[in-house]
Amino acid sequence: LAQSRHRSRAGASPAVPAPARANDFARRYREVRAVTQTLAAPLSAEDCTVQSMPDASPVKWHLAHTTWFFETFVLEPEVADYRPFRPEFRTLFNSYYNTVGPQHARPQRGMISRPGLDEIRDYRSHVDRRVLDLLERDLGGAALDIIELGLHHEQQHQELMLTDVKHLFSLNPLRPAYQESAPLATAEPPALRWCHHPGGIAWVGYGSDAFSFDNERPRHRLLVEPFALASRLVTNAEFLAFIEDGAYQRPELWLSDGWDAVHKQGWRAPLYWWREDDAWHTLTLAGPRPVRPDEPVCHVSLYEADAYARWAGSRLPGEIEWEIFGARAAVDGNVLETGLLHPRPLAVENSDSPAQLFGDVWEWTSSPYAPYPRYQPPSGALGEYNGKFMVNQLVLRGGSCATPRSHLRATYRNFFPPHARWQFSGIRLASDAP
Amino acid sequence: LAQSRHRSRAGASPAVPAPARANDFARRYREVRAVTQTLAAPLSAEDCTVQSMPDASPVKWHLAHTTWFFETFVLEPEVADYRPFRPEFRTLFNSYYNTVGPQHARPQRGMISRPGLDEIRDYRSHVDRRVLDLLERDLGGAALDIIELGLHHEQQHQELMLTDVKHLFSLNPLRPAYQESAPLATAEPPALRWCHHPGGIAWVGYGSDAFSFDNERPRHRLLVEPFALASRLVTNAEFLAFIEDGAYQRPELWLSDGWDAVHKQGWRAPLYWWREDDAWHTLTLAGPRPVRPDEPVCHVSLYEADAYARWAGSRLPGEIEWEIFGARAAVDGNVLETGLLHPRPLAVENSDSPAQLFGDVWEWTSSPYAPYPRYQPPSGALGEYNGKFMVNQLVLRGGSCATPRSHLRATYRNFFPPHARWQFSGIRLASDAP
Amino acid sequence: LAQSRHRSRAGASPAVPAPARANDFARRYREVRAVTQTLAAPLSAEDCTVQSMPDASPVKWHLAHTTWFFETFVLEPEVADYRPFRPEFRTLFNSYYNTVGPQHARPQRGMISRPGLDEIRDYRSHVDRRVLDLLERDLGGAALDIIELGLHHEQQHQELMLTDVKHLFSLNPLRPAYQESAPLATAEPPALRWCHHPGGIAWVGYGSDAFSFDNERPRHRLLVEPFALASRLVTNAEFLAFIEDGAYQRPELWLSDGWDAVHKQGWRAPLYWWREDDAWHTLTLAGPRPVRPDEPVCHVSLYEADAYARWAGSRLPGEIEWEIFGARAAVDGNVLETGLLHPRPLAVENSDSPAQLFGDVWEWTSSPYAPYPRYQPPSGALGEYNGKFMVNQLVLRGGSCATPRSHLRATYRNFFPPHARWQFSGIRLASDAP
Amino acid sequence: LAQSRHRSRAGASPAVPAPARANDFARRYREVRAVTQTLAAPLSAEDCTVQSMPDASPVKWHLAHTTWFFETFVLEPEVADYRPFRPEFRTLFNSYYNTVGPQHARPQRGMISRPGLDEIRDYRSHVDRRVLDLLERDLGGAALDIIELGLHHEQQHQELMLTDVKHLFSLNPLRPAYQESAPLATAEPPALRWCHHPGGIAWVGYGSDAFSFDNERPRHRLLVEPFALASRLVTNAEFLAFIEDGAYQRPELWLSDGWDAVHKQGWRAPLYWWREDDAWHTLTLAGPRPVRPDEPVCHVSLYEADAYARWAGSRLPGEIEWEIFGARAAVDGNVLETGLLHPRPLAVENSDSPAQLFGDVWEWTSSPYAPYPRYQPPSGALGEYNGKFMVNQLVLRGGSCATPRSHLRATYRNFFPPHARWQFSGIRLASDAP
Repeated sequence: LAQSRHRSRAGASPAVPAPARANDFARRYREVRAVTQTLAAPLSAEDCTVQSMPDASPVKWHLAHTTWFFETFVLEPEVADYRPFRPEFRTLFNSYYNTVGPQHARPQRGMISRPGLDEIRDYRSHVDRRVLDLLERDLGGAALDIIELGLHHEQQHQELMLTDVKHLFSLNPLRPAYQESAPLATAEPPALRWCHHPGGIAWVGYGSDAFSFDNERPRHRLLVEPFALASRLVTNAEFLAFIEDGAYQRPELWLSDGWDAVHKQGWRAPLYWWREDDAWHTLTLAGPRPVRPDEPVCHVSLYEADAYARWAGSRLPGEIEWEIFGARAAVDGNVLETGLLHPRPLAVENSDSPAQLFGDVWEWTSSPYAPYPRYQPPSGALGEYNGKFMVNQLVLRGGSCATPRSHLRATYRNFFPPHARWQFSGIRLASDAP
Repeated sequence: LAQSRHRSRAGASPAVPAPARANDFARRYREVRAVTQTLAAPLSAEDCTVQSMPDASPVKWHLAHTTWFFETFVLEPEVADYRPFRPEFRTLFNSYYNTVGPQHARPQRGMISRPGLDEIRDYRSHVDRRVLDLLERDLGGAALDIIELGLHHEQQHQELMLTDVKHLFSLNPLRPAYQESAPLATAEPPALRWCHHPGGIAWVGYGSDAFSFDNERPRHRLLVEPFALASRLVTNAEFLAFIEDGAYQRPELWLSDGWDAVHKQGWRAPLYWWREDDAWHTLTLAGPRPVRPDEPVCHVSLYEADAYARWAGSRLPGEIEWEIFGARAAVDGNVLETGLLHPRPLAVENSDSPAQLFGDVWEWTSSPYAPYPRYQPPSGALGEYNGKFMVNQLVLRGGSCATPRSHLRATYRNFFPPHARWQFSGIRLASDAP
Repeated sequence: LAQSRHRSRAGASPAVPAPARANDFARRYREVRAVTQTLAAPLSAEDCTVQSMPDASPVKWHLAHTTWFFETFVLEPEVADYRPFRPEFRTLFNSYYNTVGPQHARPQRGMISRPGLDEIRDYRSHVDRRVLDLLERDLGGAALDIIELGLHHEQQHQELMLTDVKHLFSLNPLRPAYQESAPLATAEPPALRWCHHPGGIAWVGYGSDAFSFDNERPRHRLLVEPFALASRLVTNAEFLAFIEDGAYQRPELWLSDGWDAVHKQGWRAPLYWWREDDAWHTLTLAGPRPVRPDEPVCHVSLYEADAYARWAGSRLPGEIEWEIFGARAAVDGNVLETGLLHPRPLAVENSDSPAQLFGDVWEWTSSPYAPYPRYQPPSGALGEYNGKFMVNQLVLRGGSCATPRSHLRATYRNFFPPHARWQFSGIRLASDAP
Repeated sequence: LAQSRHRSRAGASPAVPAPARANDFARRYREVRAVTQTLAAPLSAEDCTVQSMPDASPVKWHLAHTTWFFETFVLEPEVADYRPFRPEFRTLFNSYYNTVGPQHARPQRGMISRPGLDEIRDYRSHVDRRVLDLLERDLGGAALDIIELGLHHEQQHQELMLTDVKHLFSLNPLRPAYQESAPLATAEPPALRWCHHPGGIAWVGYGSDAFSFDNERPRHRLLVEPFALASRLVTNAEFLAFIEDGAYQRPELWLSDGWDAVHKQGWRAPLYWWREDDAWHTLTLAGPRPVRPDEPVCHVSLYEADAYARWAGSRLPGEIEWEIFGARAAVDGNVLETGLLHPRPLAVENSDSPAQLFGDVWEWTSSPYAPYPRYQPPSGALGEYNGKFMVNQLVLRGGSCATPRSHLRATYRNFFPPHARWQFSGIRLASDAP
């Protein structure tokens, strides 16, 4: 059963009795599913249909795939004689679960003009009714675990809907906006300070009873050298200094594969930046505007983050260095719920601890995405959720302005290939202790 | 002026007085533009947005580009202080007119989720009103000539809308249908006969006063060897014999580039054919169904047409051979107006002359698309309409089941590259006279 | 039998008795085969091994393939119990004859470091001895015909050896030279004149009893419009004016596919030209040097030739227009035997007829490479020699500075795809008669 | 200075006095350089010229580049007024040192038919004489350090010469052999046992005074969980069971990127394996022969190694797990000096410790290639040697049958991207302790 893997390895059952838990689940299910609908609301059926690149998916596909997840992993096993909403969807909206069966080819997701957005909305309603029915009945812990996983899965796709729409709109010469802009006062970010840690044996990874993804487990010990973490994110002003110092033309600052990417892709600045009237402009989900120097830099690849750190005489943090500080911080910040959908300037000076750890931008770490010691993926199809991607990617930490708050944890491990730039990804520096 | 090129070289003005001509134009303008809307009616906004391959365009783009043509080539020069519906459209819906200015990249036409279909419909209405206003006023012959060209241009895109939607639907595992199917009785196509021509000096190309494209001109003489043209199109039954004789595995039947295409593309049958339950099936605009042996074969490339002819101990006709017989036939057949949108079995035996010359399928000829002797493209942007494509393509003749009847002529020259298969393209054989 | 196709359609046997003919063949066989060796002599084994692009072949491969031709088409059928020099060569050095069997993939020809050049020389000697043995015995006319074809085939590869080595050396930053340069006096090419032809019925194609390729046959009549042919080739000075007029940045001068090629390939000048010290330089087989204004322009594609002609207010000749004048001229000029291996400035004014028709550069025509009326390829493997390439290419006429004189005829049809530039290809203008 | 990084961080000078050290260096220099020549001896100039794929280089390039290393990093800085052997070589044989200047494009290394092999041999002699001259004079420790690095660099290229030639020969249908085969008795490899380690704090990385690469430093501590390492390498017999169990068709066994590679590359077995006469065959440097079940499996990618481990219910070792056992073993085995140039069956049962740790095949680990804590690359050009490749690759340990013995250490970190198969790369299993 998949259950045991999403829970702690010790197999301890949650203390909450099942009926109360199901009750709570029904509320959360409604809430999370409604957020998805709300995020899609400003988009036309046409906006929801187009796939802008193989890495991105149409919003319609996100709406359907998250529903498919509940249909496939909850309704099919739990409802006797369940008849699928439409049998073809089993293949059409399967992302990458080979154990479930074949998949519609990823780069072809944008060819599916039908089913239309209306039919996908019906699909969502249909599955919602059946899942909520189930939650009123006696549902075992294993099924509840999968529903919980499904809700976290849906939250991941909420963020992807926003980043994928942003990419789509960036290809449109009309420069459409997803939402109105909310003007923010100009800030003067505080000077960067170093937050020190003495090193030693540290416990990392998820160890409690509540939900986490399998890749955050098991909790384990590590020996950490003394280090320091930057007190805040790198800003656009700082990144502009890097650009103006000719960094995109200086191979000695780059990893070899990064230098190749700069040349092949013609990178000269972060994604969505362009020069106009002698100034850098950028695209936000509220439309185009000049680059603000006080905001955290965003939409950079690992290669650019790494080159920036080298140029700054510093380095990127390891994911564990980040987690050590993240575990002490409140899980809050400029997340999806602020509604800004863009990284926010840091105005207030923090106390001793690093600011902006959660929200704003996913922070590239130098850590390749690899299994923790004694990691075991769940058995069955859900074992494909995380484990098979543990190569050729790097870990990002902390969540972004498009991540729901309740989705985040200090132990959360996001991962993307080093060339990816369309996520809200930014830079925090780290340093060896003197 | 572009006018002179679209008219006869002798420059004779049409006999019809301008006001009557404008009157007639208003009626035709309304008719042709309405057909376009009717063809788009069964499609959702999502269907109209997606681009299935770089060769094809979204229906929304066709709707807008044909409108752009009138806005750019009629309203801008003819209406004082004309303000464009939306200035960005000048680039967005320019297909390939470098003289007009830059173009939105062709393979990116499917990224344009906005403007939405509704806005494009408004664009059409806006331009229609202004063009019809113009037609009520005193409009010169040159402008009328361009409107006439614009209507023929729109008819070309009517056919492309259908072939492009068919291609899009072919990529959808749900196999949607564009329209209901109209069942036809099974036919027994008559045996193929040869219609002979003694050769000699022939006049070809368009020579009268009415509309033709520049590439049909000038009318000129040629020396033609004796030849014979097949009395009807090649049928699916005949093409199946070719397949079953292993033709797709026999290099000696193919042009060298054709054999490469067979291998690189994995061709084993015409486009849209697949094996299912031990039988060949195909996709039609009325949905999937078994291949009918009595229908003309369709969706073949020049390479397949040429290989079939070689296998059959015959050859493809030269475009002039086709035109000699086409010029004697009535311009009618299974064209757009029959509503079948699929080639139709030949039931009735013809008299002495070839059947199915017009409609059903565009007939590949062996003639590379090249200028006629002393061909001159129009000056200005409209000189880019045809002339610059006169390389790497072959001529097809006769129109298809998706071509409007009033669009066709015996001198009409369609052209596609030899690997193209998504048009309604088929095969008629020719032969040297004994 | 292949014989009948390489001879006249009427099948008339040559008047020369077979033994005398064989005697003559032995002499010519030795001569032609020796030229090949001479051309390879300045090259190291390493030079002979590398393939610089899929369109080009290693010299070693040319040496072997021309030998394979005699082994496969003469020794195997004519020598009882013939044992191949090395059985693997049947596949390894088969260019494109599917009828003979599989072929080593063309882009992999440069991977064959073994057999080494020495072994290929042994292979040549071995086959030469056996063919010359045969020529001392009673050999039928059909076999002699194939030997004759093999010698013309070898001459084609002599030219390709030079163009392929030139391309290879162009990729070497050391800029090696194939031979010493022979300085030529500066010329002042005469002004371009037009040589007129009144049009009418013309006979074209090869009609005599001697050797021609199948694609030059059958001789047939055509109706030709009045036209004029330029009295000489376009010079570098003239082509420089085209460049300096911004032609490579002006889409209106180009065929659509040509404009794409300009952009995708970054063309700014003919192949092998580059700017250095504010002057254009070029590569010759005698090494790099400044571009001479008085030489015929060379290494241009059909697209560049066509754009130049349009820019010059003129057009390219049809192949038949060229042939009409070619048939009246002496088959001589700056061909392989002059040893220059580069187009030569025209110094002496010609009489009334066009100069430089033969030699210097292959002249692009506007004629797609297509079969003549009633063309029939030979049966069997040799039917693949020409016929299967009759699509997607254009005809070039007249031969170049790398073509053996005895290889040329007025009816000779060379052919390359429109983007090809590594052959010695240049431009002659034509014009409609006033 | 580069020196300090290649030496211990503490900066301790070697105990050996400089003159004696130089003396020793002269001997080793001669030896190492002579091995390179010996390895190239069986190859023709043509063999040495061809580049079989962008990942591989021509042997001639290896011969020149290793020489360029000494010329650029030793002769240029140390010899007053040094005049380069040929100035163009600075660019032509620069592999990837941006700090030194531009580089001839890697995929174009095979285009360099000139300089010929003879000239490269002269180049080697020239540089050897100058370096040996220097070694007779008073040379500082920094320069000696760079010579030492250059010798280890040359040994790396000795191995690459063999793997690159093997790849080249694999593309030749004549299946050439690099050397004669030495028949080995059939072995019965002992059953796989687990060698346990209790975990705890471990010191890893290079810590002594002698040579190591910068990426092996600094020596540092780690916390290691209890684990077990397999007593021997995975054999062909075992890997055949994996194949026969349908593993190449079972997505659940593979990393996602690995499954993509299987499909895109059509992998069905290790590189150089093919079916013939109902048996698997493979290519060795002594030519083709049937796959021996008793040999260690070789030429597998990380993806195949990882899938095999998963199939076997086990996992790959982390690089530190390997190093812990490697540090206790003698640095010996089936290395270059045995002359087999192929992995060797394990006949003799080992004692308690793992066998085959050094030699035979490079062992894939699960460890992404990343810097050790507080790693600092050398300053200057030699900082590009290792550091800039620390992304998108995985670590391999232990050396292969093509690695010189004196080149290996327990701390040695080799690295390749996960899809690479042309190195002698194989599999050792590891396991969590029970």
